[in-house]
Amino acid sequence: MDGLVLYIGNKNYSSWSFRPWIALTAAGIPFEEQLIPFDFEAGNPRFRDISPTGRVPVLHHGALRVWESLSIIEYAGELFPDAGIWPEDVGDRAMARSISMEMLSGFRALRSACPMNIRREKRAIDLPEGVTADVQRIENIWREVRRRSGGPFLFGGFSAADAMYAPVVNRFDVYDLVSSEDTLEYMSAMQAHPAWVAWRDAALQETWIVPEDEA
Amino acid sequence: MDGLVLYIGNKNYSSWSFRPWIALTAAGIPFEEQLIPFDFEAGNPRFRDISPTGRVPVLHHGALRVWESLSIIEYAGELFPDAGIWPEDVGDRAMARSISMEMLSGFRALRSACPMNIRREKRAIDLPEGVTADVQRIENIWREVRRRSGGPFLFGGFSAADAMYAPVVNRFDVYDLVSSEDTLEYMSAMQAHPAWVAWRDAALQETWIVPEDEA
Ligand SMILES: N[C@@H](CCC(=O)N[C@@H](CS)C(=O)NCC(=O)O)C(=O)O
Ligand SMILES: N[C@@H](CCC(=O)N[C@@H](CS)C(=O)NCC(=O)O)C(=O)O
Repeated sequence: MDGLVLYIGNKNYSSWSFRPWIALTAAGIPFEEQLIPFDFEAGNPRFRDISPTGRVPVLHHGALRVWESLSIIEYAGELFPDAGIWPEDVGDRAMARSISMEMLSGFRALRSACPMNIRREKRAIDLPEGVTADVQRIENIWREVRRRSGGPFLFGGFSAADAMYAPVVNRFDVYDLVSSEDTLEYMSAMQAHPAWVAWRDAALQETWIVPEDEA
Repeated sequence: MDGLVLYIGNKNYSSWSFRPWIALTAAGIPFEEQLIPFDFEAGNPRFRDISPTGRVPVLHHGALRVWESLSIIEYAGELFPDAGIWPEDVGDRAMARSISMEMLSGFRALRSACPMNIRREKRAIDLPEGVTADVQRIENIWREVRRRSGGPFLFGGFSAADAMYAPVVNRFDVYDLVSSEDTLEYMSAMQAHPAWVAWRDAALQETWIVPEDEA
């Protein structure tokens, strides 16, 4: 069987690409990376050729196409059941999926007001309605699951749930959105993870600018 | 261990509740149902007591809380691995999860313009921007996966993916959104499924009116 090929957008901006990339990298799952820069002016025509939704991330595995960030992570977890993609306990795994899907389906106020931007210098912005409620809900989630697990990551060791919240860690940081100690502690653990560092260093090398994402 | 208790909203309107309910029912997984009527005027206070997000559906299993429609379905699939919640082939399963998550995270134009409404009489409405693109994308998804599987459901037998699209079948019907034969054929198969019929019959008995959902 062919290897896994993960198509992603710009590392500085592509929050959905970051999620499967860091999940697979942190779990030591081998894959080839193909980065296709955004071209919003032209409507991202190259994404149409590789992805059924015209969006990234998308995983190619032979003739199979797997899209949606979390579905790619689930598929990798099925191919590599011992890689620790999900927490081991069935109840923890259920909670990890619930919070991962709450991320996938929600937090739209935060997501649209504060685009992921790895190279951005920390600077607060005026927050539209709804952002503060999103931030508080996410802090509550992190606090509660880390109190159960003991940390440092959401369910102890790094899992799919951390991957799904990785772009939020960047947002909380660069838009200066949080100050409670337990939140900052989790963010430090995430930002020190080797997979995070590798993505960040590559993002800092990029020179593309996406004006829509410079809030 | 205690049994599964699934908390849902009104059957006539609660599209997210319908998804795990029909998935578990179609798979023959035993659960107790607790219906809590919407109370949007008061901000749905009863949902706060039972659900970490203040939204339904939520599954209680002993002390465990599982929320997000698709996470509930995943958890049921883990507890009952032989119930056929997901397609058997690993590639089919990946596609089933991709389209399920595309539903969970997207199709917002369709979802907000055309709320699920089981008892509604079929009548077209003026469609805001984006709805037609959503309808076409969904028809393409259904067509492509049913061509691969041979039908009648998306992956042959009824699976989690059909459950995730069940409310869309109602929307396509009551807002008169589609006319191609393969789409109508799939909708007929869904609407003839015993689990569909059971939910619909219960919805038709309800007398609550939610004005926001009467488009
Ligand atoms: N729900 C999807 C979201 C994917 C998405 O929105 N990707 C963005 C980049 S982060 C994209 O491809 N945008 C390009 C476009 O829409 O043209 C997922 O989880 O993968
Ligand atoms: N993404 C969630 C959506 C849940 C949701 O929006 N539920 C609605 C009913 S269908 C709700 O509880 N609304 C009440 C409220 O927001 O107060 C899921 O998949 O379960």
